[in-house]
Amino acid sequence: MVKKTSSPRTEDDKTAIINRLRRIEGQVRGIQKMVNEDRYCVDILIQISAITAALKGVGFTLMEEHTKHCVAKAVKSGDGDRAFEELVDLIKQFSR
Amino acid sequence: MVKKTSSPRTEDDKTAIINRLRRIEGQVRGIQKMVNEDRYCVDILIQISAITAALKGVGFTLMEEHTKHCVAKAVKSGDGDRAFEELVDLIKQFSR
Amino acid sequence: MVKKTSSPRTEDDKTAIINRLRRIEGQVRGIQKMVNEDRYCVDILIQISAITAALKGVGFTLMEEHTKHCVAKAVKSGDGDRAFEELVDLIKQFSR
Amino acid sequence: MVKKTSSPRTEDDKTAIINRLRRIEGQVRGIQKMVNEDRYCVDILIQISAITAALKGVGFTLMEEHTKHCVAKAVKSGDGDRAFEELVDLIKQFSR
Repeated sequence: MVKKTSSPRTEDDKTAIINRLRRIEGQVRGIQKMVNEDRYCVDILIQISAITAALKGVGFTLMEEHTKHCVAKAVKSGDGDRAFEELVDLIKQFSR
Repeated sequence: MVKKTSSPRTEDDKTAIINRLRRIEGQVRGIQKMVNEDRYCVDILIQISAITAALKGVGFTLMEEHTKHCVAKAVKSGDGDRAFEELVDLIKQFSR
Repeated sequence: MVKKTSSPRTEDDKTAIINRLRRIEGQVRGIQKMVNEDRYCVDILIQISAITAALKGVGFTLMEEHTKHCVAKAVKSGDGDRAFEELVDLIKQFSR
Repeated sequence: MVKKTSSPRTEDDKTAIINRLRRIEGQVRGIQKMVNEDRYCVDILIQISAITAALKGVGFTLMEEHTKHCVAKAVKSGDGDRAFEELVDLIKQFSR
């Protein structure tokens, strides 16, 4: 695969993020199993909370790459205000 | 499969929850694809935020079943304080 | 002041909570001063985030008292389902 | 008072933010009264949740000003990466 120049991520960054997402996918499958086996609700809920935290973690990594690359580029090309508004909207969503 | 009497969930409840978790699993796979295809970070982040919300939604459903069944049972058998402490710890985790 | 029997809180509990709320009130006044003095945004934001955490902390304490007293009482008088629905609605609000 | 040139806020912006913070301060005093009067826990908790949301709202406004002014300025002077790291740390705190 050829690295697209528009991406803020190197191939290594992408692999690392995809691996984290695969683990999260496996954890979501794990909860299905727990529900199916009638495991104790609290154990299932703690697991859900761990996955939510892991997903947010991936989100923060992407957000850091996004700001350092896309937003910084937007600022330099005079389009910073729009990029920051988009970013703050995103932050509002994530802080829910 | 035989319904275990210890579970606060009917088979229908379980199927509904497992279906929601399967959709979430598919969405997590979807983000892997988006990352792989170098899609715009903000679109990926909005999607991550949607999955986090969906997972929390499943958590709330489980929490409602847990309180109505397990916690109520614990209260009736005189073990309410411990069940409530466990519940509040859980709420703290979820409100992060 | 006479202790009302309907409250899940002793006078000591109430004093402790009111003192925590007074500190929070003072911190909110502190941020007004920081804004007025044109202090660095990030310092103000870290302070806001600390107050939010302190408020949530008070909320968790109240929630623990509420569950151990009001909800437990509701369960015993056969009104548990309603109390738990109210509680889960509250948890949803707090996890935002 | 003379407008400091280093601030991302006009005097009008500052007045608006300080007024919002004063309302929040009044709401925090209001909860102290509710606790003192043994009001129903759930009503107090809903009020706490409203204040937390109002505080976050002020935080988002400040964050938007901060990004559009301080971060944009940092990017233009070659100090963008540091400003973005600081911003993402802030976002992590706020999303708790």
